Amino acid sequence: MSRELDHSYAVILAGGQGTRLWPLSRASRPKQLLPIIGDDSLLAQTVARLDGLVPPERIYIVTAAEHAAEAGAQLPTLPAGNILAEPQPRNTAAAVGLATGVIAAHDPQATVISLHADHAIQNPDAFRRVLRTALLAAQRGDYLVTIGIQPAGPATGYGYIHREQRAFSVDGAAVYAVERFVEKPDAATARRFVESGEYFWNAGYFGFRARHFLTALRTYMPALARGVEAIQEAWGTAQQDATLAAVYAGLEPIAIDTGVFEQATNVLMVAGEFPWSDVGDWAAIQEITPATEGSNTVIGGAGRHIAVATAGCLIRTGDRLIATIGVEDLVIVDAGDALLVCHRDRTQDVREVVEQLKREGGDAYL
Amino acid sequence: MSRELDHSYAVILAGGQGTRLWPLSRASRPKQLLPIIGDDSLLAQTVARLDGLVPPERIYIVTAAEHAAEAGAQLPTLPAGNILAEPQPRNTAAAVGLATGVIAAHDPQATVISLHADHAIQNPDAFRRVLRTALLAAQRGDYLVTIGIQPAGPATGYGYIHREQRAFSVDGAAVYAVERFVEKPDAATARRFVESGEYFWNAGYFGFRARHFLTALRTYMPALARGVEAIQEAWGTAQQDATLAAVYAGLEPIAIDTGVFEQATNVLMVAGEFPWSDVGDWAAIQEITPATEGSNTVIGGAGRHIAVATAGCLIRTGDRLIATIGVEDLVIVDAGDALLVCHRDRTQDVREVVEQLKREGGDAYL
Repeated sequence: MSRELDHSYAVILAGGQGTRLWPLSRASRPKQLLPIIGDDSLLAQTVARLDGLVPPERIYIVTAAEHAAEAGAQLPTLPAGNILAEPQPRNTAAAVGLATGVIAAHDPQATVISLHADHAIQNPDAFRRVLRTALLAAQRGDYLVTIGIQPAGPATGYGYIHREQRAFSVDGAAVYAVERFVEKPDAATARRFVESGEYFWNAGYFGFRARHFLTALRTYMPALARGVEAIQEAWGTAQQDATLAAVYAGLEPIAIDTGVFEQATNVLMVAGEFPWSDVGDWAAIQEITPATEGSNTVIGGAGRHIAVATAGCLIRTGDRLIATIGVEDLVIVDAGDALLVCHRDRTQDVREVVEQLKREGGDAYL
Repeated sequence: MSRELDHSYAVILAGGQGTRLWPLSRASRPKQLLPIIGDDSLLAQTVARLDGLVPPERIYIVTAAEHAAEAGAQLPTLPAGNILAEPQPRNTAAAVGLATGVIAAHDPQATVISLHADHAIQNPDAFRRVLRTALLAAQRGDYLVTIGIQPAGPATGYGYIHREQRAFSVDGAAVYAVERFVEKPDAATARRFVESGEYFWNAGYFGFRARHFLTALRTYMPALARGVEAIQEAWGTAQQDATLAAVYAGLEPIAIDTGVFEQATNVLMVAGEFPWSDVGDWAAIQEITPATEGSNTVIGGAGRHIAVATAGCLIRTGDRLIATIGVEDLVIVDAGDALLVCHRDRTQDVREVVEQLKREGGDAYL
């Protein structure tokens, strides 16, 4: 590992649930802790993807208190103290603030890149190169750096980052000034964005010098900044957990994009051209997983799949046999106590099932 | 019960497996022993349907040796001796021959109607009236009587019975001479059959005086007749089971239709106009079961079903939750260790899955 990144840290946000991946994803075993793609959990894959760039002792995980033990168990190379347990979810500004505060408390020179635990990236080398550029750019000065994903198409499900023409170069790689962050567009706007070549998907990856981020927090979210400072003071003392519990509950739940990056003026963007997915729903999993039987993709457990006249299906087996006859473009997910059969164009509507279960006493399945 | 039926017996053939109702129907728990429609097994429903016509002590069941105990347990009102266990399957001529021989051994005046354990009949009163007519017609003389089901449509999956115009009347009901039995027709022929009004579905229901049937056996299947006589002689003695085992294995496996009724010249037909189904596949079950949720039919176990944009589906739950989103015209069957997802136009192809399991070491699922 090069000396230039000696003070670089990664913060991995592992607080979500992944409702749209029900019935596999549950409150007690959320998406990022599951081996949804491949043999390791998305969280473990996210840590592995940093190999050679940021060593385990400088990787921090922010996760819900109830999942901290499982996250630690999945990441045996990380020091136990690097798993930061949120007493309750307070959105990403607080999560990144907490981790950055803890990191800055022992390394005032730290540069941090914050990532998500539940994304899939198919070219880890390209990903690491982009992270390295973002970290180097952040070290250059009082910048807030984000990574914009080169759009694979005019998606309406993501926010976009509009970069300016103006760019400078870090170690041979282009870094752009950011014109603005844009909310999820409609289809026509998304097409225009993508055609322009100036708009990138906002994947929620943010880099900065810790010291500078805490300054930005004081400017744009002063109450949150005060909370982080209180936690920093107590960190490593006997009051650590009590202070965290007392302070965290009162933090305003705002996304880091909205709360900080969209307010700031010194934001830079590095373009990420690796194949990227937020693994948002079952259709996304089908897209990034190679077909295994003709045009069907069979993943998951020990259960067999027998197909007669079956095409374009994603089948996630559990322990039992699944037989399909005369069907196409279905997503079938066997999660033991619950089974999903969904047209692949309707995988976003898995949310509706989850809502119905919440309303109608289906807690056992949530 | 009227005196005129004092010597009437029913033989219920319960030897099949119902492969097309996999994964619910298995070698160890065949279709007729399962509560596929309603709360009781098809076998128990078949016995209940004879209530008021033939008393339990005159109802005989012919079933595979490995299912005799379960059949007996499901039919507590029947004398244990009325469950006849076939040492191995030898088709319907042998099964009906065995039962008729056993019945005639103790009641030489017996009249017998043989039925199937795995059919669904929605108007039991009309059904009993037709059975009564068939039994009375059989008592009239040396006739072989069959019941022809009024076709509900030009089905190509059944054999047909072509009746003659010539009819006589039994207790006010028409009884026709039979012109011939016809194999499963093609679609055009089936349409012609149904339009003529002279063709009826062969449901495999046959009535006769026991003595006369045994005479017909001697004429058309003399080897089988000799086997039945040997069993009759041993029946009720210490040699009963040994003789049955020794003789039955050697009997020629031929259907009663082909072996006897299609050869005979004195065959009569009574028309059955009740709604009838052979419950042959999952589509048949959907046809005869009222929709329970919009256009969907949910039957089966304790498992919940949650539907979002789901239409025309048959869902047979097991213990677990099944959620469906954006699908139509599917058959979904949860049988615990195996799950079927099948377009409802392809339910005949369940056979292919069973064949594949036989070829590829799937015995655990058969």
